[in-house]
Amino acid sequence: MNEPLDFYFEFASPYAYLASLRIGSIAGAYEREVRWRPIMLGAMFKLTGSVPNVQAPLRGPYFLRDAPRCARLMDAPFTLPPNLPMNSLAASRAFWWLHGADPDMARGFAEAVFFAHWAEGRDLSAIEQVVEVARTLGIDETALREAVADPAIKERLKAETDHAIERGVFGSPFIFVDGEPFWGADRLDHVERWLASGGW
Amino acid sequence: MNEPLDFYFEFASPYAYLASLRIGSIAGAYEREVRWRPIMLGAMFKLTGSVPNVQAPLRGPYFLRDAPRCARLMDAPFTLPPNLPMNSLAASRAFWWLHGADPDMARGFAEAVFFAHWAEGRDLSAIEQVVEVARTLGIDETALREAVADPAIKERLKAETDHAIERGVFGSPFIFVDGEPFWGADRLDHVERWLASGGW
Repeated sequence: MNEPLDFYFEFASPYAYLASLRIGSIAGAYEREVRWRPIMLGAMFKLTGSVPNVQAPLRGPYFLRDAPRCARLMDAPFTLPPNLPMNSLAASRAFWWLHGADPDMARGFAEAVFFAHWAEGRDLSAIEQVVEVARTLGIDETALREAVADPAIKERLKAETDHAIERGVFGSPFIFVDGEPFWGADRLDHVERWLASGGW
Repeated sequence: MNEPLDFYFEFASPYAYLASLRIGSIAGAYEREVRWRPIMLGAMFKLTGSVPNVQAPLRGPYFLRDAPRCARLMDAPFTLPPNLPMNSLAASRAFWWLHGADPDMARGFAEAVFFAHWAEGRDLSAIEQVVEVARTLGIDETALREAVADPAIKERLKAETDHAIERGVFGSPFIFVDGEPFWGADRLDHVERWLASGGW
């Protein structure tokens, strides 16, 4: 029963960022690893007929108030980035490229992307902006640019997203604990209880 | 600062039912009243392009798992009703009719509707089914039937719904604390902290 948690997320989701700050310690307390799995949430939105929070009437203004409010409650650094939602394609492909060589390095990259985007408020839609973040981690710039354009890496991200859809993922963050699905940063307390109790 | 909380809800929402079980004690601990305000969420969905959870691809199956799981965690009685989502028009109009004479009676009626629908799993879409619940509270059947067909009561529910939209309500439950909006039963902990601290 020491199966890793699956942590599906979209870099453009502030709730994924907030969850990313807690998921490791929650899992670690129960001797679980976390599999970080960025996906392209736009593919889910096409299926469910949804739109990004920020673009939705009524829901958009609430979202712009709730996300920073949740961050303040957690004492998490938070700055609303421009151009919401960002295009996470380059960052997500870069993640899966790094993951092929070193999952820990990929996780560190994901944390750096989340921090740059949601804590510092930087746009990371363009490859140049992703390269800037990668550079601080000592990641080779040329190799990164090539990887993001590599058909095999593109396919890996698409396959991850398709697989997530098959498992029922439709939002971000989305966490599986021993097959049990939990949607939203506000379900992390349930994730923790599930880990503690094996279900209820 | 002892302004009542506004508790907007749709009877067809299980999360509203779950929130209804806690909102009174949370508010009461801070010497606040709660204004129960049923609205027709379908009007919001038309604006936001949303559909009821149960009808949404991917989101539907998750919702059918998450709502009972949340109820079990709270030890709240829960039975999935047939014909989701129910049509809450008759129940909501009956509420606003009762509210005109006695807000406390209206709240008791709302609690009974929630219990019949979400704890006992009874459909309450038809006026006959609403009448059955009302009868147990000693509410006059003939007067209730007339009220539900009364243009002034229909207009009251519509005006409440329109006013809620003006205030930014797009989901259920939706709670205002001194003007601050909170969406979802999973924001009740935030509601409680807001009451305790006056914000953060």
